[in-house]
Order: sequence, then C-alpha cells, then structure tokens
Amino acid sequence: MRLDLIRGLAQPADTKVLLFVLDGLGGLPLEPGGPTELEAARTPHLDELARVGTCGLHEPVAAGITPGSGPGHLALFGYDPLVYETGRGVLEALGIEFPLEPNDIALRANFCTVDADGIITDRRAGRISTEEAAPLAELLDGIECSGAECFVRHVKEHRFLLVLRPDQALGAAVHDTDPGRPGEAPLEPRALDAASEPAARLMSSWLKAARERLADQPRANMALLRGASRLPEWPRFGDVFGMRASATAAYPMYRGVARLVGMDAGSVPEGADSLAAEYRRRFDDFDFHFLHFKPPDKAGEDGDFDRKVAAIEEADRIVPALMELGPDVVIVTGDHSTPALLRSHSWHPVPFLVHGGAARNDDAGSFGETACAGGALGLRRGRELLPLAAARAGRLAKFGA
Amino acid sequence: MRLDLIRGLAQPADTKVLLFVLDGLGGLPLEPGGPTELEAARTPHLDELARVGTCGLHEPVAAGITPGSGPGHLALFGYDPLVYETGRGVLEALGIEFPLEPNDIALRANFCTVDADGIITDRRAGRISTEEAAPLAELLDGIECSGAECFVRHVKEHRFLLVLRPDQALGAAVHDTDPGRPGEAPLEPRALDAASEPAARLMSSWLKAARERLADQPRANMALLRGASRLPEWPRFGDVFGMRASATAAYPMYRGVARLVGMDAGSVPEGADSLAAEYRRRFDDFDFHFLHFKPPDKAGEDGDFDRKVAAIEEADRIVPALMELGPDVVIVTGDHSTPALLRSHSWHPVPFLVHGGAARNDDAGSFGETACAGGALGLRRGRELLPLAAARAGRLAKFGA
Repeated sequence: MRLDLIRGLAQPADTKVLLFVLDGLGGLPLEPGGPTELEAARTPHLDELARVGTCGLHEPVAAGITPGSGPGHLALFGYDPLVYETGRGVLEALGIEFPLEPNDIALRANFCTVDADGIITDRRAGRISTEEAAPLAELLDGIECSGAECFVRHVKEHRFLLVLRPDQALGAAVHDTDPGRPGEAPLEPRALDAASEPAARLMSSWLKAARERLADQPRANMALLRGASRLPEWPRFGDVFGMRASATAAYPMYRGVARLVGMDAGSVPEGADSLAAEYRRRFDDFDFHFLHFKPPDKAGEDGDFDRKVAAIEEADRIVPALMELGPDVVIVTGDHSTPALLRSHSWHPVPFLVHGGAARNDDAGSFGETACAGGALGLRRGRELLPLAAARAGRLAKFGA
Repeated sequence: MRLDLIRGLAQPADTKVLLFVLDGLGGLPLEPGGPTELEAARTPHLDELARVGTCGLHEPVAAGITPGSGPGHLALFGYDPLVYETGRGVLEALGIEFPLEPNDIALRANFCTVDADGIITDRRAGRISTEEAAPLAELLDGIECSGAECFVRHVKEHRFLLVLRPDQALGAAVHDTDPGRPGEAPLEPRALDAASEPAARLMSSWLKAARERLADQPRANMALLRGASRLPEWPRFGDVFGMRASATAAYPMYRGVARLVGMDAGSVPEGADSLAAEYRRRFDDFDFHFLHFKPPDKAGEDGDFDRKVAAIEEADRIVPALMELGPDVVIVTGDHSTPALLRSHSWHPVPFLVHGGAARNDDAGSFGETACAGGALGLRRGRELLPLAAARAGRLAKFGA
C-alpha cells in the first residue's frame, strides 16, 4: 500500500541520493551519563552534516523490536519489514551469495546427532567445527532426487544451505523438521498447503539420502531443515522510487538484500576507503547509492566499545570524499543499534541525519543519539527515511488535488 | 477503522471546538538559520495561545508526502487521507461548487489538440486562455447522450468539468483517456469492472459528440477525460464526533471538502475580518467550527515570503475576536506547508497548537516551526489532532473497562 503510494507519486529528477549505512550504528553508554560509541567518536565531518542537515531517530521495525540485518535494511530501502518478510532459507542463501533462481527452494539446514532409534541427542551436532563440517556438506552436495537438482553449501560450523531446484515451480510452504528440542525424532516435512506437497516429498527423499550418506558419522549423522522459502516477488526499488539504484557492500548478505529489491549490487574489499573509491566509480551511472560499512556492528557484537568508536571514526574520514561528488541528498544512519554494552543487535532507536534539499534547521549541532533525540525529524519508523529523502530530492509529486 | 473507534467513544458535551486553518502555514527559512514565515511574523495572539496551550508538528498524509488541499483538510477533520481518497473529478466539481448528486459521475477534462489522424499534438491545447476556452465549454454543455444528462462547466484555461447524470446508479471505475503524452491517440474509455461498462459507453458517446462540435477549432478540437468518480459515501463527521459541524471558507474547494464529510458550509468574502464576523454569527448553532483562511498559501505559492508573513499577521489579528466567544478548545494549524522558498505545497511537517481543556505545559513560548518541534504533542499524523481536541473538550469516553 505505502509502496503503491510512492510509486504513484514518483517523478523523474536529475538528482542523486546517497544512503550511507554504518551497520549497528546506534549504541549505549557504558555507564549512566556517559557517551555512546557515536558520541565518544571524533566525527567532525558527520557533525558538520548534522549541523547543516536535519536529524532524528528511527525504529527500523517497531518499538521494542530488535531487527535482524534483513529487516533493518529493507526498512532503510523504504519497505515495511513487517510486510516484506524474507524466508530464512533465502536469507541464508543471500548470506553466502548462492545464485538463487526463481523456482529454487532454499532451506537453512543444521547438522544434528541422532541415536540408533533416530531420536535427536544434539540439535547442533556438538557445535561441530567448520573444518569438520565443510567436507560433510560437500558429501551431501549433489544428492539426486527425482524431479529436482539438489545443492548443498556449507555456511559455518553446524549450519549449511540446502537448495532444491525443481523442474517446475512448486509451493514452498513446508513446516520445519526441527522439533526445537532434543529427545524427539526430527519431524517429517509437512506441507502447509496442497501446492507445497511436492516440495515436502522432495525434502523427505533428500533427508533419507542424507541420513544414509552420514550414517557412519559419530556426531553429524542427520540434518534438520528450516525456513523453506523462495525468492520473494516484491516491487522493485527502481520501479517504486524511479531511481536507478546501486548497492556497494563488502559482505554478501547486504548485496543480497539489495538484490532482493532489484538493486545493482557491487562487491568491494573491506574498509571505508574502498567504499569511497567504488562510490566514485559508480556515481554517474546511478541515481541512488547505498553504501554499506560493516565494522561498527562487528565491534559492537564483540562488545568492543573502543573498536566501535574507531570504526565510526574510519567512516567519518571518507565523508569529504563522498560529499565531493555532490550528492543532492544524503542519509547517514544505521540499520539497527548494536551497543557494545549488549554485545548484540538491540531495539534502541537509531540516529539518522538527512542533508541536502529544502529543510528546516534544528538544534542538532553534532551527530549522536542525544542530539538526534532533539532533532526536528523526530522519532520515526525506518521506512520513512527514504520517502523523506526522495521528497527532498524533488522526486515525489503532490498527493491529491 | 479509526473513525469507528471515535464514533464508539463520542459522548455529548456542552463544549465548542474551533479549528482555525491557515492554509499552507508551514514554511522554510530563506537561508540556513533564518526564520520561517511564521517565525518572522509578529503574532502576539497566536504566541500567547501557544504559550498557554500545547504545541507540536503534524504530517498530514505521511513522511515525505506533499498533500493536496483535499487530503490535507481530510486529515485535519480526522479522516486518514490514504483511506478516504477522493476522485479527481469530484474534487474538480467541489472546486467550482457544482452541486453534485449521488449518482453523478464527475470527470476532470482538458481541451487538447489532435491532428487529422486523431493523434494528440498538444495535451493542453496550447494552454488555451480562459477567455478562449470558456465559450467552447459552453458549446459542449448540454450534449445529449442516451441514458444521461451531461453537464460541462469551464474551470480555468484548458480545464473543464464534465458531469454525467445517468438515469440510474452506475459504476464509475473507468480508465482515464489521457495517454499522458502527445504522439498517441486519446485512449478509449475502458471500464475497470462490469458495473462501470455503461459509464464507459456514455463517455465514448459524449466524446464522439464533443469532437464533432469542436471539429472547426484550430487548437481545442478534442477533449481528454480523467478521474471519473462519484461522491464518496463516507462516515459523516457529525456522526463520528457527535458534533454539529460548521465550515466557513471564502473558496469553494474548502467548503466542498467540508460538505464531503457532511459539514454545513457557509461562504464568506475574502479576508480575516469577515471570517471572524461569520464565526460570531454561526457560533451558537454549532459545536465544531472550521474556519479556513487562504492567503498564506497563495503568498507561499507566489514565492512571496513577506506577503505570507503579512497574511499570517492578518490571521493573528482576529484571534482575540475568536477567543472572545469562548470556544473551549482551539486548534490553530495548516493543512500542509507552502514555503515561499519552494513556491509550492511541500512535505514539511506543519506546526500546530491546541489551546483549552486539561493539558500539560510545554516549552513552546511562541508559535513557530522550531518551537513546535520541541512541543509536548510531538510529531504526529494530521488525523490525530481532532481526536486530541475532542478529548480535551470532554467529548470522548474511556476505551475499555
């Protein structure tokens, strides 16, 4: 509905919009009254953008909801993550950049341990190491099932990706086989609708073959399947906002989410400087640029406050190079908060700034959580940022007469 | 859905609510750090209402969306403009106060130029002048189509209103005939559902007759039809809020939108003083009064910052006369922003104040965009203002036990 509204109002303009995402940007003070990571960081260039531009806070999904990377980015792309939900299997495929085709059914899979009666004794096969698990995933690759090609790709430790490529389009609404606790047998794949019966049968026969191939393994002697899903058919970003969209990211997951909405995604080595160089290279060919910078999130997940501060400062240093190209409207924000204090993603609102285009002033004289809480753009849903930027870029016509 | 909630809670009270709309009130500074039009204006009476009352900002439709006058006012009346959409034909009829009847199908029409092969060479007939177009509209009035009366009223330049009044109720879901660009023939009227087939046929036969009557014209030799629509059947304001509602406006469009939700609309000459006089005259007979003051929007559209400042000051001068009558709750706001800087409506949030009834204080000591950004009522959707005012007026009961 909202994307339909935007699509109906989008109009051409000769303007460029930059979305610079510092992954996990939002933080928390280590002690009451102290600065957050962003507030502790020395960020003269971001502070200047905040001073000249307008600030606010956004909640990517909803109040109290901690976003995963997929929903966090979809919100920043203008897609309500509660409407545009991605299956876990598809997200797993995006994360390792497996080239999914439209009919593919992707599943997130775990190695597990079952006893002689087929009862699960360990749902993660004793958290088997990557070194041990990777050859077993290879062993499972290429199992033949009648009516579909089957691909297996190892992801990490006990996790792998299973992709079924059937001869024709099938429903993918099949219940997970993981019962959620040890002491029970894996569940049989159960179709949730008639169109998904063939997919359930494919999963059953694949599981049977997999168990045979793993029979001699001491720990990883069975697999559990979750999140059967196909590539979603969503409105394309370019059609909705009328902008040729580019995504630049060092990590496959973020390129994958950008591709889900039809962006042209390019890979870069890690580090802010390569991001800036790639932005320069691609600048002319696109109207919208999404740049993804991962290090603040990683440092936050590691609970390393100082490293997160340093990562934010690294991002700040490339701001002049980004601005030099003359984007008309710039958003700087995160896809969610990752406070070092919590060592994880969190539900806390994420600071954002919008620079360029017709705007009012506000009192935010630096870029930080407290300053943004008093910003003129208020506290909003993440999906509202891109319409605001598109409006400033002269790309949205009037609604109604 | 939301209106159902309000309707279920509305309770009688001996209180009066005033909604004073300064059209296009929200503005922008001409240069960074400067005042907006409202901030530059000397408005001692509005400042006093803001100081005693509570302030905030509202987005009439959604983030980044620039509202037309219709959606902007519906929001202020408590109606979500994304739910209560009005067809363009109906809005055109409201704008010239054509007395639409329930079965009427209203269309926004343009004169256009077609070549000998019927291909459009100019979609606006060379932006033909009002003087030239008005007699041609008269020429088209009274074309006879079997099964319907047909009315044509000139609006402005190349624009006119076509109203089909069929013998019985017909569907009005017919596609526009304007292909959107020259170089193509006008589209045939195409029904979007079975119930609208007769209306499409009526439009076809009207177009055929119109083309014959215009055959000798050098420029305006054909018509394009858009926005086929009937009077919507919406909940009536009086039923929802339990208030007898009066609208006072100098321009027909605003009386028309008020009538769409069932208000009793009265006309006044332009100028704030006549608005105040009419308010006094109608005060006792209604519980809710909507006063519409157009000049700030017109000055904004003309890009005239100083004239917009003067218009706001003119509105300020009648505030004592309005307050003298003793309305219990007063809202002062705009239906959208019209910054002189942009010479058009814009998406920027609109300042508002609510005065009267039980309320907390806030720091907004004057009425302006920056002060309202820090107001206690926050940043909200436009449709939330009227429920707030109704609550303060003691007109909404408790929800749930």
